[in-house]
Amino acid sequence: MPENEKWQEQMLAVVGPKGFVRADDDMAPWLTDWRGRYTGTAIAMLSPATTQETSDILKIANENAIPVVPQGGNSGMVGGATPDESGQSIILSLRRMNHIRSIAPEDQLVVCEAGVVLQSLHEALAEKRQRFPLTLGGKGSATVGGLISTNAGGTQVLRHGTMRALVAGIEAVLPDGSIFDGLAALKKDNRGYDLKHLFVGGEGTLGVVTAATLKTVPALVDRCVAWAAVDSADEAYQLFRFLESRAPLSLEGFEIIPATCLASVLRHIPDTRSPLKDAHRWHVLIEIVRDQADAQDPRSVIENLLATALERDLIKDATLAASEQQAEDFWKIRDSISEAERANGPALQHDISVPVAGMAQFINEASPVIEAKFPGTEVAAFGHMGDGNVHLHVKAPPGAQTPNWETDYANQITPLVHDLVIAAGGSISAEHGIGQSKRTELERLSSDARLTMLRAIKTAIDPKNIMNPGKLVPLASGQSGS
Amino acid sequence: MPENEKWQEQMLAVVGPKGFVRADDDMAPWLTDWRGRYTGTAIAMLSPATTQETSDILKIANENAIPVVPQGGNSGMVGGATPDESGQSIILSLRRMNHIRSIAPEDQLVVCEAGVVLQSLHEALAEKRQRFPLTLGGKGSATVGGLISTNAGGTQVLRHGTMRALVAGIEAVLPDGSIFDGLAALKKDNRGYDLKHLFVGGEGTLGVVTAATLKTVPALVDRCVAWAAVDSADEAYQLFRFLESRAPLSLEGFEIIPATCLASVLRHIPDTRSPLKDAHRWHVLIEIVRDQADAQDPRSVIENLLATALERDLIKDATLAASEQQAEDFWKIRDSISEAERANGPALQHDISVPVAGMAQFINEASPVIEAKFPGTEVAAFGHMGDGNVHLHVKAPPGAQTPNWETDYANQITPLVHDLVIAAGGSISAEHGIGQSKRTELERLSSDARLTMLRAIKTAIDPKNIMNPGKLVPLASGQSGS
Repeated sequence: MPENEKWQEQMLAVVGPKGFVRADDDMAPWLTDWRGRYTGTAIAMLSPATTQETSDILKIANENAIPVVPQGGNSGMVGGATPDESGQSIILSLRRMNHIRSIAPEDQLVVCEAGVVLQSLHEALAEKRQRFPLTLGGKGSATVGGLISTNAGGTQVLRHGTMRALVAGIEAVLPDGSIFDGLAALKKDNRGYDLKHLFVGGEGTLGVVTAATLKTVPALVDRCVAWAAVDSADEAYQLFRFLESRAPLSLEGFEIIPATCLASVLRHIPDTRSPLKDAHRWHVLIEIVRDQADAQDPRSVIENLLATALERDLIKDATLAASEQQAEDFWKIRDSISEAERANGPALQHDISVPVAGMAQFINEASPVIEAKFPGTEVAAFGHMGDGNVHLHVKAPPGAQTPNWETDYANQITPLVHDLVIAAGGSISAEHGIGQSKRTELERLSSDARLTMLRAIKTAIDPKNIMNPGKLVPLASGQSGS
Repeated sequence: MPENEKWQEQMLAVVGPKGFVRADDDMAPWLTDWRGRYTGTAIAMLSPATTQETSDILKIANENAIPVVPQGGNSGMVGGATPDESGQSIILSLRRMNHIRSIAPEDQLVVCEAGVVLQSLHEALAEKRQRFPLTLGGKGSATVGGLISTNAGGTQVLRHGTMRALVAGIEAVLPDGSIFDGLAALKKDNRGYDLKHLFVGGEGTLGVVTAATLKTVPALVDRCVAWAAVDSADEAYQLFRFLESRAPLSLEGFEIIPATCLASVLRHIPDTRSPLKDAHRWHVLIEIVRDQADAQDPRSVIENLLATALERDLIKDATLAASEQQAEDFWKIRDSISEAERANGPALQHDISVPVAGMAQFINEASPVIEAKFPGTEVAAFGHMGDGNVHLHVKAPPGAQTPNWETDYANQITPLVHDLVIAAGGSISAEHGIGQSKRTELERLSSDARLTMLRAIKTAIDPKNIMNPGKLVPLASGQSGS
């Protein structure tokens, strides 16, 4: 350790040797994001075991103006947890803070530390007949702190909201090391600006989330998964509105899938087959659940509703999963789309959202605009219709070389997609956040008022710009870290 | 108009004579809060008719460093909309911006301007068979902008949340006049810090809310109101948990009332009588609703649940309102408590909250502490048990002179109440906000981290401190307007 780097000794004294890693080999897994798109370097990785240790580390970092990159499971999608290449940063891993502090099933609350892995949380709650109604592919690595800092979504947002709706309280350490204790779950609290909501989706740029009080719901009694066919995205929307008005409290999933995506899955993913015999233009995956034993059987709920929908010509055909295995098979089709599309050839993927009522129109109108402007491309749009969340893939023209495609077209097609989203009143980031990958576009497409506020808040709370610099907030030129 | 006050001419040019009032007589109703506790003076009252006019006014105010006091219905509880006595401010009334821009029943959204009065909103939605599930005593004057800026509550928070949960999008003008257009109702939007949540409960200190997209729910089909008796606050809590677990989706009201408060109402409020024959220590008002015609009849829901509760000894007795008139009579008892208590003699009223699970304990433990420390006082606690929201009244000792009582005791009793609230992990403001009346206590009882963040945000977004100075944020000494 260089003698002039006294702050490293101070940090080592705080966390002890178990929480201090300098060797490149030991740090390597945490220097690259999981999709392999961003790689950085760091002076060291610090892993505090307590909120107080986190506070002490930030105090030292702030005094010495050391950039701090908070990290949870390192499974983010936008490079938000990867240090830059300057080699001046430290990684602050929250993974050692992995205690569930308390579970109160009667209050439907759980208090857990930032490093608790989502799957562990699910398992701990299942023992108490509770569940945390948010899940996603990376649940085996994603941590509570990361889920909060990225305001994670998933397939249950329709009924339970994003992470933001599930956070009842937060504990965080500010850049100067002071501890914000907002863990108390108060249903009514009018003591000024809601600070909790700044940390949710804040991507670690205002401080470090160290713990949270999360809302839980009763464990599921059972569920029924259905597959239906419709002629258009508009029809899918009509079906969604119909189901939502009739079963608002048990409709937990509503995903739309175009014929092209289904075909990709059937072609590339082993052990998949189409739930319906005939070919259809659009498909819908529906999940109905119950979490009270005396509530209506979800199977009879969806059976009746789909029968009515068929009578009213809202759907062309439908089938119910006959078993839990078949339910999983239906979901596997939905969850394999990205993988199948990748096997199909290079494609640009966009995580965008529009108002729910405008989603069908957006899909209908945006796709031909993109395909016309970039001949040979093919657009596939699927996603969570109940949330207005479109996963929009633009597939490369047949024969396009991957490197050429990415370098030549990405910088043209993505801005066009984003322009169309903004014109539809939407957001260029639905689920994944801004991180490194969308910062330039956020700056290009935000109003002066929005940028002014983002910058003002960032600069006010983190005046030395030590918290995850270069992520999320496009600072004005001339400001440090821009 | 003095020649040197060119900015007044500029503002007059923006809003025209209809939107510009200088005469003290014309301004008088808006210079005092409705409870008559705060009175200020102002140079003029500006009433813009559009968002653009609001923007133009703020630009001029910011350039000339003129303090701006935004005002809606002027029915707030903490002096948050009353100018100070310096006579240097302008009142910015949003009451002319009273258009409902659009109602979309199928999307369950309404877009309305800040000056729309709550009752008008209720009426406009009723025509579309929708409702806005928030109401309060001042609904005939309270405006949407004021409800948002104070994060208003009410008796339906249990099921539908406070104003914060009902705001899907916001349009606001920042202190520099720039317009933040966040009206699009996006279910998923991860573009950085959630700016909407800063304006909700921001008390006009960061800018002016000019319009909002609000969530609506289906109009009620019917409701059933019940009155039950329990032996203690703990029993009331057990009953609450029982009902919430059995009818989570139709329980819309759960209010607890101690025997002393019921007695006050029966003594002082004409045309009231006790719903139950016998005397009981605690009373509970329960409202069960349905907003789908094919949902279970609320009368049979509550009848069955209360029968089970009686069997299990969760309640001592209960009765159902036999008619809508009787339902209103039950609610009248609850809504008259404050008035009845005032007729009883002087009392200090506190609007506080604690975690729901801790409310019974707080009531049990705080009351004797207060009564012991201030002999002769009597504490009455009632309120929204489902929200942890306690209305805590400390009645003066018999024979206490009102002026003496207020001056001698208020400054001792209220801090004690607040200390007890903080010790219970609660909030010194549940519904009413901070405004002028709780700013000193907020400063005394907030952690450094909370104060640092409140101040940093305020100073960053409103560097000239023109927006409602002296309200909500206790600025550090030396900062302007502190």
